[in-house]
Amino acid sequence: MNKHRIAVIPGDGIGVDVINEGIKVIDTAKELTGGFDVEYTHLPWSCEYYLKTGRMMPEDGLDILKDHEAIYLGAVGFPGVPDHISLWGLLLPIRKEFDEYINLRPIKLLKGIQSPLRKGPEDIDFVVVRENVEGEYSGAGGIVHQGTPSETAIQTSIFTRVGTERVIRYAFELARKRGGKKSLISATKSNALNYSMVFWDRVFNEVAKDYPDVTARLMHVDALAGYFILKPEQIDVVVASNLFGDILTDLGSAMQGSIGIAPSANINPEKKYPSMFEPVHGSAPDIAGKGIANPIGAIWTASMMLDFLGESDAARLVFKAMEAVTEEGTYLTADLGGKATTQQVGEAVRNKMRQLV
Amino acid sequence: MNKHRIAVIPGDGIGVDVINEGIKVIDTAKELTGGFDVEYTHLPWSCEYYLKTGRMMPEDGLDILKDHEAIYLGAVGFPGVPDHISLWGLLLPIRKEFDEYINLRPIKLLKGIQSPLRKGPEDIDFVVVRENVEGEYSGAGGIVHQGTPSETAIQTSIFTRVGTERVIRYAFELARKRGGKKSLISATKSNALNYSMVFWDRVFNEVAKDYPDVTARLMHVDALAGYFILKPEQIDVVVASNLFGDILTDLGSAMQGSIGIAPSANINPEKKYPSMFEPVHGSAPDIAGKGIANPIGAIWTASMMLDFLGESDAARLVFKAMEAVTEEGTYLTADLGGKATTQQVGEAVRNKMRQLV
Ligand SMILES: CC(C)[C@H](C(=O)O)[C@@H](O)C(=O)O
Ligand SMILES: CC(C)[C@H](C(=O)O)[C@@H](O)C(=O)O
Repeated sequence: MNKHRIAVIPGDGIGVDVINEGIKVIDTAKELTGGFDVEYTHLPWSCEYYLKTGRMMPEDGLDILKDHEAIYLGAVGFPGVPDHISLWGLLLPIRKEFDEYINLRPIKLLKGIQSPLRKGPEDIDFVVVRENVEGEYSGAGGIVHQGTPSETAIQTSIFTRVGTERVIRYAFELARKRGGKKSLISATKSNALNYSMVFWDRVFNEVAKDYPDVTARLMHVDALAGYFILKPEQIDVVVASNLFGDILTDLGSAMQGSIGIAPSANINPEKKYPSMFEPVHGSAPDIAGKGIANPIGAIWTASMMLDFLGESDAARLVFKAMEAVTEEGTYLTADLGGKATTQQVGEAVRNKMRQLV
Repeated sequence: MNKHRIAVIPGDGIGVDVINEGIKVIDTAKELTGGFDVEYTHLPWSCEYYLKTGRMMPEDGLDILKDHEAIYLGAVGFPGVPDHISLWGLLLPIRKEFDEYINLRPIKLLKGIQSPLRKGPEDIDFVVVRENVEGEYSGAGGIVHQGTPSETAIQTSIFTRVGTERVIRYAFELARKRGGKKSLISATKSNALNYSMVFWDRVFNEVAKDYPDVTARLMHVDALAGYFILKPEQIDVVVASNLFGDILTDLGSAMQGSIGIAPSANINPEKKYPSMFEPVHGSAPDIAGKGIANPIGAIWTASMMLDFLGESDAARLVFKAMEAVTEEGTYLTADLGGKATTQQVGEAVRNKMRQLV
C-alpha cells in the first residue's frame, strides 16, 4: 500500500481552521477509496512561532521538509510580523529551495457560486501556469542614498534561459493534454519591459515550434487582465512570469466569487523535492478563530495534492463532493452569502463523499 | 481670448478615425461655449511615417511638440513595425522627456453601458493615478550569454525619491479635492519586491502624514486587482507605479464595458512641458479603416484635455453630451453591441451638445 508522507504547516490565522478541515477530508478519502495511506508531520511554523523563536522555521526546517512528498500549507502572515519576514522566512524559501518552479492555479467557477462577472461556470474554466522561483521575485536590488533627496531604490528581475524555457514548456504540455481548446496565451509586456519580456517572448516563440498542435498567442499583461473579465470563455491555458502570474491569478480567484475558494500547487515536476499545496487566500487575521473561514480553497487544494500524489480517484471524489456542496448551496460560509461554519462545510463535503463513493 | 495650441498625432489604425471625431467635438465645444480658440498642428507621425523615414518622428520632433500646450494622440502601433520601435520611438519618449509623470485614468462606467461586472454606473467611479516616467519602465537592463544555455535577461526597475514622492503627493491631493470618500489606496507588492516596493511603502506612509483627512491604505497589487472586480464601489483614488498602473487601468477600462471607452491624460503638472492626452485603446489594425471604431474614448479624452486647458465649461459640455448619447443607446458602435459608425457617434455627441448648451 502506498504511504504518502505529508508535512502539514497550518501557519497563521484562518490557515489553522481550513487545514484542519482539509486533513479530515483527506482522511475520509483514504478510508473511502482505500489503496493508500498517509502519514502527517505537523509543523507549528508560523508568525507565532517567529515571535517565540525569532525564526519562521527552525534552522534545519528545509531538511525536515525534504523528507516528505508534499507540503500542505494554510497561510502565513499576522499583524506584528512584517510580511517580508513571514514570507522570506518560510513561503518563498520553500518555493525556491525545493525548485517548485511551477505554480499551478486553476481558475474555475464552481457550480452554485455566483461570479462577480456576468458569466456562469461554463464560461470560467482555465488554468494559469505561473513561474514560481525567479523573474521579478529574484530578490535582487538595493537602496542608495537612504534618507536623502537622491534616495533611489532598484529592483532587478532575473530571467534565465532554463527557468524561462521550462515553465513555458510545461504550459505547452498542459495545453496539449488538458482537453481544452489546446490554446496557450503567454502574458508579456515586451512593449515596455525591453529586456526581460523581449527575452521571454523569444523563448516562447522558439518553444512554440515544438507544439504546432497548440494555438500559441502572446498578449500584453495589461490587455490580458482586461481579457480575463471580458472573454474568460476564450481562455484555456495561460503562462506567466512570477509577478504577472501573481496578479492574474488573484484576479482569477476573484472571478471565482470569493478569494476563499481558489487552490494552488507549487510543483517541482521532477519530484526531486517536495511540492507544496496551499489555498490562494491569506491568513485573514480579521476573521481568524471565528470559525467562519471558507475551507473550500483548502479542500480543493487537498484534491490537487491527492492528484499529484497519484491518488486520482481520491482527488476526483473530493472535487466532486466539494462542487456538489456548493451547487446545493445549503452549506456555504459567509463570504459566499451563507451562514455555515468552517466545520459544517467540511462535514458537508465529507458526507457528500460518502454518498458519492 | 485664450488661444490653445494643440499638437495632433492621430498615429496609426483607428487612431486616425477617432481623433478626427474628437477634433470636430472640440471645435463644436469652442463654437458653443465661446471664450477660447484652438490652433492645431497636425503631425503625421506613425508607423507609416516610420516605414518611409526610418523614424517614428523627425529628429527635432520633441522640439516641434514643445511649442504646444497639449498633445492629442490617437494610437500607435501597426503590424510590421515592432512594438518597441513604435513605442520607444514616440509614445514613451514624449512621456519621459516632457516629464509627464502623472498618468490620470478615470474608471467610470457611463450610463447606458453594461459592465462585464454585475455592477451599475453608481458602483464604478474612481480614478487611478499612475506614475508615468520611471519605475519598471526605466528601460534599464540587458541580456548576457545570448543564445547559450546560460542566457540571462535582467530588467531593472528604478524608483527615485522625487519620482515616487511627487506622484503619491499628487494622488493625495486628488483624493482630498475629488469630492469622493477622501480615500487613497496605494498599490504595492512589498511582500515580494523587497527593495522597490518596500521603498514605495515607506514614502507613501511618510506623505500620508501630511494628509490626515485622507484615509490611506496599502494593498498588494494582486489583491487589489481582485478588489477592483469584487468591490469597485469602495474605491475612490488609487496610486500605482508605472507597471501596476498599466495593468490596473486596463482592467479598469474593461470594467467600463469596452476598451474603446477609456480616456487618459499624461500630465506634467507644472506645465513646464506639454501634456499628452490619449485614449487607452490601441490602434486595432484589425478594424482600421472600417469606420466602426468607438470614438468615445477619444472624445472623453478631448474632454479631459479641455479641462486641463482651463476650459471647464467646454469639458463638462462634451462629457455630458457623450454620456447622454451612451445613455440613450441609439448611437453605439459594434463593440457596445450597436450598429453606428464612428462618424455617427461623433455626430450624435455634437448634436447633443447643441441641445444641452
Ligand atoms: C504572499 C505573497 C508573497 C505570495 C506571492 O506573491 O507569491 C502570494 O500573493 C501568492 O500568490 O502566493
Ligand atoms: C503601449 C504601452 C507601452 C503603454 C504602456 O504600457 O504604458 C500602454 O499600454 C498604455 O497603457 O498607455
